[in-house]
Amino acid sequence: MSEGFLEFDGVRYLDGQSSDPRRLGWMEGTPPPADQQIRFADDRFLDFPQIRWTLSHMRELVPTVNVWRGDGPASRFDEAGGSDAATIDKLAFTDLDGRERRWDASLADAYTDGILVLHRGRPIYERYFGALQPHVPHSCFSITKSYAATLAATLVHEGVLDAEQRIPHWLPEMRGTAYDDATLRQVMDMQIGVAYSEIYADPKAHIWDYARAGGLRPRPAGTSGAASFYEYLPTLRPEGRHGEAFAYKTVNTELMAWIMKRVTGQPLAQMLSERLWAPLGCEQDGYLGVDPTGVPMGGGGLSATLRDLARFGELMRREGEWNGRQLVPAAVVADIRRGSDPAKFARAGYTLLPGYSYRSMWWVSHNALGAFEARGIHGQRLYVAPAADLVVARFASHPVASSAANDPITLPALLALGRMLRER
Amino acid sequence: MSEGFLEFDGVRYLDGQSSDPRRLGWMEGTPPPADQQIRFADDRFLDFPQIRWTLSHMRELVPTVNVWRGDGPASRFDEAGGSDAATIDKLAFTDLDGRERRWDASLADAYTDGILVLHRGRPIYERYFGALQPHVPHSCFSITKSYAATLAATLVHEGVLDAEQRIPHWLPEMRGTAYDDATLRQVMDMQIGVAYSEIYADPKAHIWDYARAGGLRPRPAGTSGAASFYEYLPTLRPEGRHGEAFAYKTVNTELMAWIMKRVTGQPLAQMLSERLWAPLGCEQDGYLGVDPTGVPMGGGGLSATLRDLARFGELMRREGEWNGRQLVPAAVVADIRRGSDPAKFARAGYTLLPGYSYRSMWWVSHNALGAFEARGIHGQRLYVAPAADLVVARFASHPVASSAANDPITLPALLALGRMLRER
Repeated sequence: MSEGFLEFDGVRYLDGQSSDPRRLGWMEGTPPPADQQIRFADDRFLDFPQIRWTLSHMRELVPTVNVWRGDGPASRFDEAGGSDAATIDKLAFTDLDGRERRWDASLADAYTDGILVLHRGRPIYERYFGALQPHVPHSCFSITKSYAATLAATLVHEGVLDAEQRIPHWLPEMRGTAYDDATLRQVMDMQIGVAYSEIYADPKAHIWDYARAGGLRPRPAGTSGAASFYEYLPTLRPEGRHGEAFAYKTVNTELMAWIMKRVTGQPLAQMLSERLWAPLGCEQDGYLGVDPTGVPMGGGGLSATLRDLARFGELMRREGEWNGRQLVPAAVVADIRRGSDPAKFARAGYTLLPGYSYRSMWWVSHNALGAFEARGIHGQRLYVAPAADLVVARFASHPVASSAANDPITLPALLALGRMLRER
Repeated sequence: MSEGFLEFDGVRYLDGQSSDPRRLGWMEGTPPPADQQIRFADDRFLDFPQIRWTLSHMRELVPTVNVWRGDGPASRFDEAGGSDAATIDKLAFTDLDGRERRWDASLADAYTDGILVLHRGRPIYERYFGALQPHVPHSCFSITKSYAATLAATLVHEGVLDAEQRIPHWLPEMRGTAYDDATLRQVMDMQIGVAYSEIYADPKAHIWDYARAGGLRPRPAGTSGAASFYEYLPTLRPEGRHGEAFAYKTVNTELMAWIMKRVTGQPLAQMLSERLWAPLGCEQDGYLGVDPTGVPMGGGGLSATLRDLARFGELMRREGEWNGRQLVPAAVVADIRRGSDPAKFARAGYTLLPGYSYRSMWWVSHNALGAFEARGIHGQRLYVAPAADLVVARFASHPVASSAANDPITLPALLALGRMLRER
């Protein structure tokens, strides 16, 4: 078989088709050959191309807590009619590098593992590739943040949390840290001045200390430092001022999740189950990776099926209402859609996201479709475009841990789809 | 609160009520106090009384693979009628130490986490204690063996496996080991001469090497030896002769599972899902602990809910038929019920199990109820008594890792229940 490649920032990667995990035979055989095994301990399980297998199998590598779907039947999507899928496959668009593309061929170029399109609540397009299947949860990574912060904003709406309170009000452990004078709202919008780097390409970045503390990277013998999220967070030192600029840092979500747990007493997995998974009629249980003390990773630990992710997107499109029940207050969804201050977002330098803002851990486009997005670092995406009655759930396992690597394809593809559907 | 105690072999343990994990507060708090945390790394997560929490939370401590329940609705048990539960609670029996007991009071003395009684397929008694809930899977430990070997016997019936073949026929890796001249049937009936000790109270017993290889115990820095099941099994040396006596050794199941996987190509989790979980209409997904290479622990890694365990027992009572489909061949169930040679069983010295035999990893009583049992080391039990139309599924977390510790209560309790129901 011939192999194709993607080049990004001067590095060459196997392309989407050539890196299909079935083609590479990861974990096949009894036992698999040594060079086709994926083990947690060798710390390569999130390397590419292993990641194409791993993101559909996280639970087989790390401890997890279940997000129960409840006892009820799965909710049914309405039946799709017509030839929408074929139309979408042929959809043409120009990527941000000026290249003409077709929707169907672009899927592999974004290392897509699965994609589901809902229009007016009906599934009109659904595809699975590689290791993903309809009933298999896929790692959401930072889409987890949007789930968690939507619940946090709900708790604020209910008066359980006061978004203007400072963090030590709930967490005295955070006195004297970067968060001493930060408000919960600043945390939820990631406008925090904290010395914490999240450059995946830098092996010395703080993100790796955080991951080792959380048990999501091996801790080789002699590893010092925090051995749980709650030990790690109080080590964070200030850098810059709060409230002035958007700065994307996963520890903010972890801190928010800590507050939610301390105030409600409810584990995140239970809150997700009772407030979303069960009432949405999700088809399958989800799960969350947990740290060595059992604390789930609120900043990126969730795995869910594509259809259940789409249900959450559809809930947001319906302004929080689902079968006559208001699962998320309409005011919370409206607040997210309004976004925050694009000027503060602009200071973060996301050149591919002009005019965006970040609110309650959603990426808000402020575009003509009213689109807002939840984003995972390997191309996972939940795209809600109310003006086009559109929800797109996509899982991917892109070799480059940065949305900037797939946005040049993804953003214009979604925009083209939204425009097409808006005309209907 | 006053504390009660159990004494066994000169050691004193908190009794069933005093060791209730909710009472002890394991893993409660944000974070839990250090002495109420249960962590994999400190290797105390299977100690008592931690185990009372752990066996309902294994997935939060180790990597696991899902046993999918499928897309269909859960099968319904018929509604129970009458006042059976109250009658059962009052059931009197004499334990093997000569003490008069009542059913309800005996549950805590067996450290019961949950118990479900089916009579003619209808649930007539269902109780949950401590950390267990109806939708929460509990660790089955060696009940896993009975699931796995029932599937193996099915593969033999289907001609996929030949029980009279010797092990190296499928696993050349096992040439020169204890299994060089052993047949699959001898493995399935555990009549293998292998140097392997399974005395949980002995820290030098081979069972701990096996557990460390399988990732079910921590491997501290510098740990040598096998780091997966498939590396560990070929290290086993002969001791004694095959086919002469029953000798209970978990590695036999692991070896059998290896053969099943190599021959069918199907992972055990998938086989359990397709052949049992889905067609039985199980309510919840189950799961299996996996070793560092992703191989599930066929000898003890399964967790399932109490109701789903009961469904498997009911399938066996119905001779493998479920809603008109033969999920397990009737001949396989009949062969298990016939048992093997009690004389060979007697050589193993189980004084509490006179007249028993062991067949395809089921414990066969040869008693008047025709009872056969699947058994887990901390009191987990699946009891099928065809002559009384009875199935009992029980989860427990007994402090002593030996069925001998709870059999003096359990065996006469189940026999008394079976006798009562047979009169109906």
